[in-house]
Amino acid sequence: MVKNCMELENFFNPRTIAVIGASHSKEKVGHDIFYNLLKEKKRVYAVNPNATSILGEPSFASVLDIKAEIDLAIIAIPAKLVPKVIEECGQKAVKAVIIISSGFSEAGNKALEKEVIETAQKHNIRILGPNCLGVIVPRINMNASFFSKTPEKGGITFISQSGALGVAMLDWAIKHQLGLSAFVSMGNAGDVDFADMIKYFEKDADTKAICLYMESLKDGRKFLEATKDCKKPIIVLKAGRTEGGQKAAATHTAALATEDRVYDGAFRQYRLIRVNTLYQLFEIAQYFVYGHAPKGKRGLIVTNAGGPGVLASDGFEREGIEIVKIDEAKEELNKVLPQQWSKSNPVDIVGDATPDRYKAVFDVLKNKKFFDFVLCILTPQAMTEPKDVAELFVKFYRETGVPCFGCFMGGDSISTAKRILRDNHITNFVEPDYAAKVISKMVKK
Amino acid sequence: MVKNCMELENFFNPRTIAVIGASHSKEKVGHDIFYNLLKEKKRVYAVNPNATSILGEPSFASVLDIKAEIDLAIIAIPAKLVPKVIEECGQKAVKAVIIISSGFSEAGNKALEKEVIETAQKHNIRILGPNCLGVIVPRINMNASFFSKTPEKGGITFISQSGALGVAMLDWAIKHQLGLSAFVSMGNAGDVDFADMIKYFEKDADTKAICLYMESLKDGRKFLEATKDCKKPIIVLKAGRTEGGQKAAATHTAALATEDRVYDGAFRQYRLIRVNTLYQLFEIAQYFVYGHAPKGKRGLIVTNAGGPGVLASDGFEREGIEIVKIDEAKEELNKVLPQQWSKSNPVDIVGDATPDRYKAVFDVLKNKKFFDFVLCILTPQAMTEPKDVAELFVKFYRETGVPCFGCFMGGDSISTAKRILRDNHITNFVEPDYAAKVISKMVKK
Repeated sequence: MVKNCMELENFFNPRTIAVIGASHSKEKVGHDIFYNLLKEKKRVYAVNPNATSILGEPSFASVLDIKAEIDLAIIAIPAKLVPKVIEECGQKAVKAVIIISSGFSEAGNKALEKEVIETAQKHNIRILGPNCLGVIVPRINMNASFFSKTPEKGGITFISQSGALGVAMLDWAIKHQLGLSAFVSMGNAGDVDFADMIKYFEKDADTKAICLYMESLKDGRKFLEATKDCKKPIIVLKAGRTEGGQKAAATHTAALATEDRVYDGAFRQYRLIRVNTLYQLFEIAQYFVYGHAPKGKRGLIVTNAGGPGVLASDGFEREGIEIVKIDEAKEELNKVLPQQWSKSNPVDIVGDATPDRYKAVFDVLKNKKFFDFVLCILTPQAMTEPKDVAELFVKFYRETGVPCFGCFMGGDSISTAKRILRDNHITNFVEPDYAAKVISKMVKK
Repeated sequence: MVKNCMELENFFNPRTIAVIGASHSKEKVGHDIFYNLLKEKKRVYAVNPNATSILGEPSFASVLDIKAEIDLAIIAIPAKLVPKVIEECGQKAVKAVIIISSGFSEAGNKALEKEVIETAQKHNIRILGPNCLGVIVPRINMNASFFSKTPEKGGITFISQSGALGVAMLDWAIKHQLGLSAFVSMGNAGDVDFADMIKYFEKDADTKAICLYMESLKDGRKFLEATKDCKKPIIVLKAGRTEGGQKAAATHTAALATEDRVYDGAFRQYRLIRVNTLYQLFEIAQYFVYGHAPKGKRGLIVTNAGGPGVLASDGFEREGIEIVKIDEAKEELNKVLPQQWSKSNPVDIVGDATPDRYKAVFDVLKNKKFFDFVLCILTPQAMTEPKDVAELFVKFYRETGVPCFGCFMGGDSISTAKRILRDNHITNFVEPDYAAKVISKMVKK
């Protein structure tokens, strides 16, 4: 059963933090964690019996020597020393502990991990990890991890079972200015698990979508219980789909191989969105952050190029998206479009389409309700003004609230247009096939 | 039957060019084509009866007024005037004509197109188009199209049935510094078709791989005859896979819907590589340009992160790539790797792997033959030096000639490493799943 999730607040908004194993040696993760927290001016205490000061701050021999109350302790010391330190945290009434140290169940030392968790439970301490990277909360500028950078604040909470993969995705998110509400590295999930996190972030006002990278679940029932009532979209990349992947996962996290179809069925039942790729994870989540995922599967395509229209139709049909009939708009479109237009969906407005022609279509569509979303395709031809078309599409999106997606294709010719779309929360897909793949994940549940 | 393909030389390496419909009005494509050719200092003549000079060059009333022999004429005038002009080209003994003008079979005017082609055949003129964008040959700086930019020279020939899609891809290629040997816009393919082009580019020394974007084939038998003996890799994106896509294609190019499985079977029989996405088209072609596509399906994965290793294994298995057993190297790897390494494929050398640890693995693999390619995965962790690992991987690739692929994941932390890989012709994939998708296309034939 999921315990009181508000206990977890100490992981994500602590008043005071102790870094046990803080270090002045740049080789040690204890250095990086302490440095990250100091840099962002958290109320943080160094604990290291072998130093009197670290990075200009006093160092305490034990957490017990700190006068202030400690909400969160972060432990980065050799595994075998962890039980004693947890006991001290218990005496100090620390409420939450992140164990960064590795050398526990993932390395075959299950007994040591059990001892640590039992000691923590005795003292009502919640544990994140062991064998994890830490936690980052951009909104309050808290980087309680040994990753050196903090992403922008935003609406996506990303919870990763793999620390390394978490780092790669953080680095990518920062480069692409993707905003996160929180990053959590789960590690071995000896105590706090995905279910606890989902319950917590369901109530977190900043989180609009929850992304999970998962290799295994210890308690599937608890997980499903947590997800079934969750009102926020949960997008999950579950690795180990195939036998080969499961073998690799077993080596990696000693995860028990569960038949993938069990996961698949459960995810489907509880309306989780399952994706196959890391970037889809964030791309779909971002759309929920923007708040305009399509409510149905009737798609309308507007394009100035036949080829990409064909590719979009292929993609839509393959992914189960309806290429909606446009009878309701045909007559009006006939009046505003040149004779060569396609007269069907995709609405091909032909290669010499000016922004005015796109506008004429948007104006006709403005008061129609026969579609659930619009995919606007553009290729940079002689008469095309990508920037102007982007602005018109944004205007249509704002006035109607209809879920809108872009597929502006090309290189430098469309870079300004792409920025305009992004700044106005319209996702632009690199090509029609990919648009269909991603949109279908939002639509089919 | 494919005619003498060397006739086509006049499209791709003409000594003299006439632009019929050259214009000083920037609104007209005849302006852009003439400007592009002048800019790159081709021997080019303007033909326009309504002007005496265009962009500082003399303008001729008819191609017949030009004294020099004309190898190639490019026609950009209203469709109904084209037959007369083709007749003049015949009298002038022009050898090849690109008809940019639209308004032929794609607009329902089949008779007009037939008349044009028959007139050309009477005079032994080969026609590209009508309703096309033109031709670009970067090596000789010839941009005989109305697209304003010329990509870098390279080994990929890209032949597109859709002009708009061609433009979008050219724009993208330029942005990503992808080199092309030629770009050809097929248009309606009234005379010269995919088969003729394949026969020509098979003999073109600069072309290492041929990419096709295809919506329909008029003469399937001729196409297969041309491809079956082609020694160069042909990668094809055939749109209209689904019924929805075929409907859209019928509207777009009036293409006859042929059952997609007929194409699929034929492509398979003649070892064409069929892809679903535009970027795969170029990504796979580029690898053939580099000359190191895997010869078999035995894949070896080296990684510093378990999670991406699992994802790669999932992808490999799903796509039919063998995750090869590493018995032959296990003992040697045991000697050089820390105790926690995975002891199986993926060779997980653990998160704290330094460049030296990658090097130790590459040194063991150097003299082994039990795999057909190596996928090197890297996530930017505390001890990782992406740049150094990239250099070591390049060294391994150079010394062994083994097909090598990268999957260095992240943002700015890996940008230098990615550049090093690219500069040394190792493709870096954005994530493991995508690596598996693309590699499998090269391997499975």
